[in-house]
Amino acid sequence: MNAEDYMNIALEEARKAQERDEVPIGAVLVDSKSGVIIAQNGNRTRELADPTAHAEVLVIREGCEKAGTQRIPDCDLYVTLEPCVMCAGAISFARIRTLYFGAQDPKGGAVIHGPEFFNQKTCHHKLEIHSGIFEEDCGQILKDFFAGKRNKA
Amino acid sequence: MNAEDYMNIALEEARKAQERDEVPIGAVLVDSKSGVIIAQNGNRTRELADPTAHAEVLVIREGCEKAGTQRIPDCDLYVTLEPCVMCAGAISFARIRTLYFGAQDPKGGAVIHGPEFFNQKTCHHKLEIHSGIFEEDCGQILKDFFAGKRNKA
Repeated sequence: MNAEDYMNIALEEARKAQERDEVPIGAVLVDSKSGVIIAQNGNRTRELADPTAHAEVLVIREGCEKAGTQRIPDCDLYVTLEPCVMCAGAISFARIRTLYFGAQDPKGGAVIHGPEFFNQKTCHHKLEIHSGIFEEDCGQILKDFFAGKRNKA
Repeated sequence: MNAEDYMNIALEEARKAQERDEVPIGAVLVDSKSGVIIAQNGNRTRELADPTAHAEVLVIREGCEKAGTQRIPDCDLYVTLEPCVMCAGAISFARIRTLYFGAQDPKGGAVIHGPEFFNQKTCHHKLEIHSGIFEEDCGQILKDFFAGKRNKA
């Protein structure tokens, strides 16, 4: 499996999140050595009444729990949207090896927008970052979701 | 109870964290209307093998779960150390009313250091912030903890 295959699974998780009326963002955590998927999930903030239950946080927590450690430096993270500041922090604490994200998030992103956290001196983890995989699909599902919300309102 | 009383309880949680060999940071979540403590906890990243298990995240998650919603705008948060970027994000998503913190964290803080997240355009929640309550005690427990780690190494 390659990066596009993993992002496709992240997109499936985003679609499942949409079906749960959650913001449609999906994430996949992969063991970079074996290529095995360790965890995959979508946003569940509404379902769990948990503002930290972003897709990225959920897969990082599951991956760390399975590994029995709070640092998983062999893992790569695929996520459909540019991570927010909270998730960027979680990614750095978990020592994720490589971050792949689909669409950019000028409004709430913290990787190439806003605080650009991984470039801050207070970020103590450097990682490889790749963006733009299925950018249009990853962004369109979000646009459709929020357009639907506005039409209902 | 006043802000110093709540910070004293956060400090107790920091000391309990130290006893568990966790980074000694404590947090208390308070219903600002009733003054009732909703949740209190210290860091548990090692115990839970969860890099997101900072004191702030733990009390926010518990408070939201109890309230059955991901937004708790009537709640105030007391924490012994300036929140990191991940916790600052969680604080904004939970719509915390007022943040009180003890010691500053030039190395990893994200409120008055580094990204200064609450001043970023990508932060969509403004809140009141008070710092410096028991600043010396809150900082000393951390200095002692890390000095102890270095001596053991």
